Amino acid sequence: MATLIDGKNLAKRLNEMTAQRVEKLRTSHDIVPGLVVIIVGADQASQRYVRNKHRTAQKLGINSTIKELSSDVSQEELLTLIRQFNDDKTVNGILVQDPLPNQIDEKLVTKTIAPEKDVDGFHPENVGKLYLNDNSNYPVACTPKGIMTMFSEYNIDLMGKDVVMIGRSAIVGKPMAALMLNAGASVTIVHRHSKDVASYTKNADVIVSATGHLHTVTADDVKPGAVVIDVGQNMNEDGHLVGDVDFDDVEPKASFITPVPGGVGPMTIATLMQQTVDLTEWSLLRE
Amino acid sequence: MATLIDGKNLAKRLNEMTAQRVEKLRTSHDIVPGLVVIIVGADQASQRYVRNKHRTAQKLGINSTIKELSSDVSQEELLTLIRQFNDDKTVNGILVQDPLPNQIDEKLVTKTIAPEKDVDGFHPENVGKLYLNDNSNYPVACTPKGIMTMFSEYNIDLMGKDVVMIGRSAIVGKPMAALMLNAGASVTIVHRHSKDVASYTKNADVIVSATGHLHTVTADDVKPGAVVIDVGQNMNEDGHLVGDVDFDDVEPKASFITPVPGGVGPMTIATLMQQTVDLTEWSLLRE
Repeated sequence: MATLIDGKNLAKRLNEMTAQRVEKLRTSHDIVPGLVVIIVGADQASQRYVRNKHRTAQKLGINSTIKELSSDVSQEELLTLIRQFNDDKTVNGILVQDPLPNQIDEKLVTKTIAPEKDVDGFHPENVGKLYLNDNSNYPVACTPKGIMTMFSEYNIDLMGKDVVMIGRSAIVGKPMAALMLNAGASVTIVHRHSKDVASYTKNADVIVSATGHLHTVTADDVKPGAVVIDVGQNMNEDGHLVGDVDFDDVEPKASFITPVPGGVGPMTIATLMQQTVDLTEWSLLRE
Repeated sequence: MATLIDGKNLAKRLNEMTAQRVEKLRTSHDIVPGLVVIIVGADQASQRYVRNKHRTAQKLGINSTIKELSSDVSQEELLTLIRQFNDDKTVNGILVQDPLPNQIDEKLVTKTIAPEKDVDGFHPENVGKLYLNDNSNYPVACTPKGIMTMFSEYNIDLMGKDVVMIGRSAIVGKPMAALMLNAGASVTIVHRHSKDVASYTKNADVIVSATGHLHTVTADDVKPGAVVIDVGQNMNEDGHLVGDVDFDDVEPKASFITPVPGGVGPMTIATLMQQTVDLTEWSLLRE
């Protein structure tokens, strides 16, 4: 029987700490952290994510603004808006919600957000600092950062461990691999072109899956006592939200496991809030 | 019997191509690529490296300048000098030779070099772009980039291959891992904290060693037919320059192997020259 990593509860406690930090910034510095979320077009899932972030931010005392742009907005209009927010002292974090319409160059959008307001941690300069294990203050992609908080809270030490990251996306796989490498793990990144993912996972102390595919990790793929982190958010045949991992199958073999829902998901938004406040505090340090 | 990857010959050919590109820039754009190498203090090995780079650059028609600073130079003096070269249109590449004295913050030095003149590819923004597999033009650490040229010249395809990077330095291990990941390999990074390096290398199609330790890779650590790349530069018991790999032991088992000397070493300087010209051409594209 694995210990369940309770992301929902951990996110709740993280949010409480974030709310206290917001309150302290307000009372001692007369500052309210400002988060701007830009959404282009009316993709339903995106709208729901953005509303979730907005509601959580408001609950924690963060000044959250949603900026809705029509799906035919030009690239230059979007970049101009981002530059305005870069220059706006009341804005500490800027986030552009995925996905973006075809006329927009997503990488250019990411690079246009000021690195010190890049609350998603996607700017190349911030990614580079992470990969180099730079010891200054910089934002990190929220899902991986939230998973590191889980490791820390459950006293899962990565030093010298054999870990496998399944997936090499810019949002999860790559930053997660960098964080685990920086924490002293031997890190393998596998992906759609890998010959034999199981040959790695079968020997791994820690497995993080972020493929978006059902049944990516089954009991046969896991060594007894492994830590299994499930970043997947998939619909199963019955229309239920499930992860990449066959939970019922894997859970008896694992030492720690995250459920879906209630695992990594809640930690992502809570980390976004935490990082909005981080950025605000760091901006004070620069003054 | 392995095929020997002849870095010396390949570097020679690469240098010839670079010289041709320099000549073309001169005749068709009236531009001479400019490389500035800053050296602080009189470390003998560093002096030798710098002279080597200088001599090669001159031979290829690159305008090379060595800037020698005394070992007690202040950080601000060094940064001011870098900023002057950042603003100098005749300078296309800036390199600060390792190691630096204690009063200098090496990471700050790296970040002060303009990303578009960062001929070593160490600036966080360039590292981030590499890790994100950005499709724009940016410099990449020269030793890993030179190794990728070797793979390409010897038709060693990394797609789907199991590769192991031994060492996680900013100069070799991390950028090398990123390049191989971008080329479609399943990449494992192991290092001094790893439990069992051989458990990875024994199953690897490609092994790159950059530990600076003798006997890092022996025949027992290698699968028959593996490609073995040796970045090490060590002195053996007899005072000879050798790599991390037990060459005589491993060579009969490998499919391809780099010798030391004459393997990766010459490719690093040749790639530095190539990248100086890259930076010069990219600067024209920005105008």
